[in-house]
Amino acid sequence: MTGFTPSKADKFSFGLWTVGWEGVDVFGTAVRAPLDPVLAVEKLAELGAAAISFHDDDLVPDDAQRRQVLERFTKALADTGMVVEMATTNLFAHPVFKDGGLTANDRDVRRYALAKVLRNVDLAAELGATTYVLWGGREGSESGGSKDVGAALDRYKESMDLLTTYVREQGYDLRFALEPKPNEPRGDILLPTIGHAIAFINDLEHPELVGINPEVGHEQMAGLNYAHGIAQALWHGKLFHIDLNGQHGPRFDQDLRFGAGNLREAFWTVDVLQGSQGRPGYDGYVHFDYKPPRTEDLDGVWETARGCMRNYLVLREKVAAFRADPEVAEALAAARVADLSEPTLGAGESLDDLRKASYDPDALAQRGLGFERLDQLAMDHLLGIR
Amino acid sequence: MTGFTPSKADKFSFGLWTVGWEGVDVFGTAVRAPLDPVLAVEKLAELGAAAISFHDDDLVPDDAQRRQVLERFTKALADTGMVVEMATTNLFAHPVFKDGGLTANDRDVRRYALAKVLRNVDLAAELGATTYVLWGGREGSESGGSKDVGAALDRYKESMDLLTTYVREQGYDLRFALEPKPNEPRGDILLPTIGHAIAFINDLEHPELVGINPEVGHEQMAGLNYAHGIAQALWHGKLFHIDLNGQHGPRFDQDLRFGAGNLREAFWTVDVLQGSQGRPGYDGYVHFDYKPPRTEDLDGVWETARGCMRNYLVLREKVAAFRADPEVAEALAAARVADLSEPTLGAGESLDDLRKASYDPDALAQRGLGFERLDQLAMDHLLGIR
Amino acid sequence: MTGFTPSKADKFSFGLWTVGWEGVDVFGTAVRAPLDPVLAVEKLAELGAAAISFHDDDLVPDDAQRRQVLERFTKALADTGMVVEMATTNLFAHPVFKDGGLTANDRDVRRYALAKVLRNVDLAAELGATTYVLWGGREGSESGGSKDVGAALDRYKESMDLLTTYVREQGYDLRFALEPKPNEPRGDILLPTIGHAIAFINDLEHPELVGINPEVGHEQMAGLNYAHGIAQALWHGKLFHIDLNGQHGPRFDQDLRFGAGNLREAFWTVDVLQGSQGRPGYDGYVHFDYKPPRTEDLDGVWETARGCMRNYLVLREKVAAFRADPEVAEALAAARVADLSEPTLGAGESLDDLRKASYDPDALAQRGLGFERLDQLAMDHLLGIR
Amino acid sequence: MTGFTPSKADKFSFGLWTVGWEGVDVFGTAVRAPLDPVLAVEKLAELGAAAISFHDDDLVPDDAQRRQVLERFTKALADTGMVVEMATTNLFAHPVFKDGGLTANDRDVRRYALAKVLRNVDLAAELGATTYVLWGGREGSESGGSKDVGAALDRYKESMDLLTTYVREQGYDLRFALEPKPNEPRGDILLPTIGHAIAFINDLEHPELVGINPEVGHEQMAGLNYAHGIAQALWHGKLFHIDLNGQHGPRFDQDLRFGAGNLREAFWTVDVLQGSQGRPGYDGYVHFDYKPPRTEDLDGVWETARGCMRNYLVLREKVAAFRADPEVAEALAAARVADLSEPTLGAGESLDDLRKASYDPDALAQRGLGFERLDQLAMDHLLGIR
Repeated sequence: MTGFTPSKADKFSFGLWTVGWEGVDVFGTAVRAPLDPVLAVEKLAELGAAAISFHDDDLVPDDAQRRQVLERFTKALADTGMVVEMATTNLFAHPVFKDGGLTANDRDVRRYALAKVLRNVDLAAELGATTYVLWGGREGSESGGSKDVGAALDRYKESMDLLTTYVREQGYDLRFALEPKPNEPRGDILLPTIGHAIAFINDLEHPELVGINPEVGHEQMAGLNYAHGIAQALWHGKLFHIDLNGQHGPRFDQDLRFGAGNLREAFWTVDVLQGSQGRPGYDGYVHFDYKPPRTEDLDGVWETARGCMRNYLVLREKVAAFRADPEVAEALAAARVADLSEPTLGAGESLDDLRKASYDPDALAQRGLGFERLDQLAMDHLLGIR
Repeated sequence: MTGFTPSKADKFSFGLWTVGWEGVDVFGTAVRAPLDPVLAVEKLAELGAAAISFHDDDLVPDDAQRRQVLERFTKALADTGMVVEMATTNLFAHPVFKDGGLTANDRDVRRYALAKVLRNVDLAAELGATTYVLWGGREGSESGGSKDVGAALDRYKESMDLLTTYVREQGYDLRFALEPKPNEPRGDILLPTIGHAIAFINDLEHPELVGINPEVGHEQMAGLNYAHGIAQALWHGKLFHIDLNGQHGPRFDQDLRFGAGNLREAFWTVDVLQGSQGRPGYDGYVHFDYKPPRTEDLDGVWETARGCMRNYLVLREKVAAFRADPEVAEALAAARVADLSEPTLGAGESLDDLRKASYDPDALAQRGLGFERLDQLAMDHLLGIR
Repeated sequence: MTGFTPSKADKFSFGLWTVGWEGVDVFGTAVRAPLDPVLAVEKLAELGAAAISFHDDDLVPDDAQRRQVLERFTKALADTGMVVEMATTNLFAHPVFKDGGLTANDRDVRRYALAKVLRNVDLAAELGATTYVLWGGREGSESGGSKDVGAALDRYKESMDLLTTYVREQGYDLRFALEPKPNEPRGDILLPTIGHAIAFINDLEHPELVGINPEVGHEQMAGLNYAHGIAQALWHGKLFHIDLNGQHGPRFDQDLRFGAGNLREAFWTVDVLQGSQGRPGYDGYVHFDYKPPRTEDLDGVWETARGCMRNYLVLREKVAAFRADPEVAEALAAARVADLSEPTLGAGESLDDLRKASYDPDALAQRGLGFERLDQLAMDHLLGIR
Repeated sequence: MTGFTPSKADKFSFGLWTVGWEGVDVFGTAVRAPLDPVLAVEKLAELGAAAISFHDDDLVPDDAQRRQVLERFTKALADTGMVVEMATTNLFAHPVFKDGGLTANDRDVRRYALAKVLRNVDLAAELGATTYVLWGGREGSESGGSKDVGAALDRYKESMDLLTTYVREQGYDLRFALEPKPNEPRGDILLPTIGHAIAFINDLEHPELVGINPEVGHEQMAGLNYAHGIAQALWHGKLFHIDLNGQHGPRFDQDLRFGAGNLREAFWTVDVLQGSQGRPGYDGYVHFDYKPPRTEDLDGVWETARGCMRNYLVLREKVAAFRADPEVAEALAAARVADLSEPTLGAGESLDDLRKASYDPDALAQRGLGFERLDQLAMDHLLGIR
């Protein structure tokens, strides 16, 4: 297997909970033993990753050993040159969060949840993370009467406003990123898509400190186009972080390795992230959030980590080749793709001028756009036959 | 069949294109003859509706007869006491719009589309409409390379900024409402959900003039909870208009009559619209956007219109009974639903206080929420057995 | 709350694993303590159920105590008048089944799985069960190369042929019922729908001993109409057992209580089960396979069990009223529903006669079918307003 | 662009209605002019196709010119060396079929539909077709009361029994292939998946004359794995014909060119069709049933036809390389894929022997299967980087 070996410059990052997933699901028990975070760091470094991320509970499940654990962990980071780029709070595993954390009906639960976030925000800052993710997987409901959605959004906003104020006061170099998901484990989750989360952020007190962390599979579970979603997020300046993985459309959250699932959309995802359309791309860590299938032993786990990075590098090279191909340039011109960047109203033109211009819609309708030829060129690049 | 007869006070409204749908689909030709808009107005008035809405092409397919058509139409409105409450532009049926209207790659098409909107905005204002809907059904793509999403959003914004400026300059009492849809007829449509549309609106020049017109089926095609979606829209102050109908989850756009499809979600939808949780509801026209199935002749068409209104009235009554039921009040209290309106941080309390408080998550986790009992009470009301 | 109290004559049955679900999911740990099967039997009897079903591991998790457990359990059955009507094998929870049981690639695993089934078949017969369900939740794959589907079907058939032969030889009064599911926990599961399972059964050695146990949610996860599915199963004489619950279309397996999810389809499901169209219905146990949401404590669990039965009884009454309503009879006639039972070719008529008859498709196309009126009548019955 | 040029030996076939699609959909009118079937034949021949298929109405829309049309058409076939391999009846476009053809409630419609099929079966035989497809797109319902599913299956069976008897009597070398689809244009369609259709066929009078014609997108609209589906169909000996195209999971029927949509599943589809797992494959015509998007002019249409065939050839080459790769062979062995072909019960072994063998499930559970490594090897082949 030649080439496509990652290095730290590629800025690949993995959640401790990904390679460390033991395989518990609704229908089955653990298939793999707990993975020592230090081993995860060492092995991921060896494979070419640059960074890791963690939930509070991933890193320090047992509070009594907090200091020892952190010392050993930071030593491993130092030894390997790895960094912590992102942290997040586990507000979903403990039964106390069965109705959510920051938007649980039970105020005592909300208070505990907020305190749990605050404590880990401090640890995140201490370990040098610059992004703090909030995935509200249990913020939602199974039935219509049990949740006052307006009140829930008030409470979500209250928490975010408190957290952003706190981070400013502490002078932390830390921004928040909300991670949307439509459903699972709750019947319906609040802020279910990229769009809902960005809309919500606009009504916060410090919107500049809050962006999103969209996951491939979560958008695709709603049948949405992930590449379109992150393109809109970039347009709003809100793509603070990303979670790459794979999924097969509306069904349970599969968390496949990146590249598996919708491969063609993965190509366009990398295209958008690389900013290869001449628009601003994404320059943060390329973070993978996936689950090695239960069929794999620990060797298989490392294969999936390797696969995530390899597939990204391969797609990055293919996207670059596609964008550099003169025949593609010609097909893009025929498809009038760049014309869309030209304002519809001319410089100095009034709406009245535009209205009074003459139009021949039947003639305009004759113009073919050649999108299929363009797409087949992309396919040829993807398949490696150009 | 007793009761549940609508009156104008119920503010029911229908698109001319709903009862007028001839039944053309991808696989079949027309099953019903064109319906005279005047007949539609008269019959809908007779059935108890208060208002209608139209696309430019619905009302005036042939420009040569524009004045005559409009005179006859306004006379019918006057005779029946019906009003035009909303208007919209057909930017999808003519082949010129095969790649979209306001975001077509072809600038000439965009110019024609914008001119078409402007012309119909004038007519909408003339006829007294207060909402102008934009459904961008053809704004999207089938393949990743053919559409620069960032540029498309720039163009969408350009058009919306021009339109809102125009409406302000003309002094029209008219607000715009964007209608999201995830896909069909395009492979992926821009601004695919309620969330994406509200996020976009926040970056417009006159966001106060632009809200949304969410359709039940469009959100459900993405597997999203419509009642949650409109609750979030109300939270943002953006629910300018609604499109009620029925759908069976992710599949083609079924446009069933209201009540068909997900009946339980219809109950919660009416609950949110009525503001029965003690939060602000929706007080605009209750607009139905559906398609009478092809199996129906014209009598069947009127049955579907009757059914939409009837089902809304029935659900409105049931929602009111549910909210007035003392056992429901008790179950809501047990489920701590109202507690969610209480701030998480106490008055005068600091984050530090909150952190230092003591928490016993295992004990908190023991508290049952009784959501299922509450939901069964709602079900009993819905089924009419309480 | 009046009426709708179940009795043993209603033949309601629950899996021990339903009310006993502790709430472990992919994202969270147990919210409820293990439930003693004896308590489950007693409480379900008190609520009006007639029978229970079990997985081997539900009933006898610890082999050492097998005899004691069974004695205590059979005593509880005797005391309450409850019966065991169905049993099944847990071939999914233990990590050994990570690649399936009867179709695992690893032959040693397949042998262990088959031995595990056989042992529990004996127990099922001993306890008087007449149906033995096989849900092959782990029989499938996440990736195309890892499973030879043809070979897997050969092995599935081998097991079913061995099991049916065994049951015949032992003289057990026991039939098998395959339970289809499209995905989750595997990426794709073999025999994913009612149809695939019946097709498979036709190629078995003793097809008369094998039918299906379709679950509402499993079919709806594939966007399929459950009422249509069981109607086809009845047509084939293959509806040996049923699993009722609730689901919201293609997404994770929600296992809501019966009635929640798609309520309108639940109405038609009961209609088909009751044979109320004048066709043979289903006369086996009405079995619920659902999961009380994690928000519920044990009281809430019993509410959900009560809700399942209550909703069935309510729908049964409504279906009967619908079918007895003279206006419905008239609407059914107008919709020509019964005409479909008349052969297309007349008695004594040849195909040649049929071809030579004259047809006026344009005239025939004018006939409206009035399906919407009929459906609104059903809706009125469902809503309790007729 | 090198290689991958089809020839007649590749047995590619196209429906006249594919390249001839004018682009009418629910929301828009025609974007392309009607395409002369003779031109379609000539151009497809030039592109490398071997055969065409047709609906009666595609070929002979106007009965008055039947003979002329057929003469001109057969001459074009002779001139180009193209053949007609499949034919089918349009039982969906005319309004008379709004409630179906062979299962319409209206018996007069059923009679007309059957006569229409018979007439085109004769033409199919005359033109040399060996497969006759029946896609029952309008056989279904939107609401539960309007269709007696059992009666509908009786009528479907009646028609199939009449048709197979007729074909035998006429001595035609023609087999029937049912094409399943879950929904669209009807709310729910009868025989919604591969499985349901095969189950149904088993109850026909001449099951040996009836198989299936599964379409990629139709199965994927139900979230089902197409490669698994055709593997099961081959296992039953029922894969009489195929419809290749592309789709993005549960949503409207996209009918994209083959390769677009789920590219990874297309790879495994070709793998199954080629019989490359050492199991019997498919040796019929490779038929494409798709719709060139409305954005394309006639040049774009031919690009899509070219793309369908090109993508098949590319995938066929990649599948062959994957199966010939020694590292793949090694990974397959590690994944124990071939072990699944070995019976679970040993030769001469009894069930009792199997039960009495000793098992150590915990030890067995430790065996990793290495499926992810195997899948990444397939991915590398697909991406052209091995």
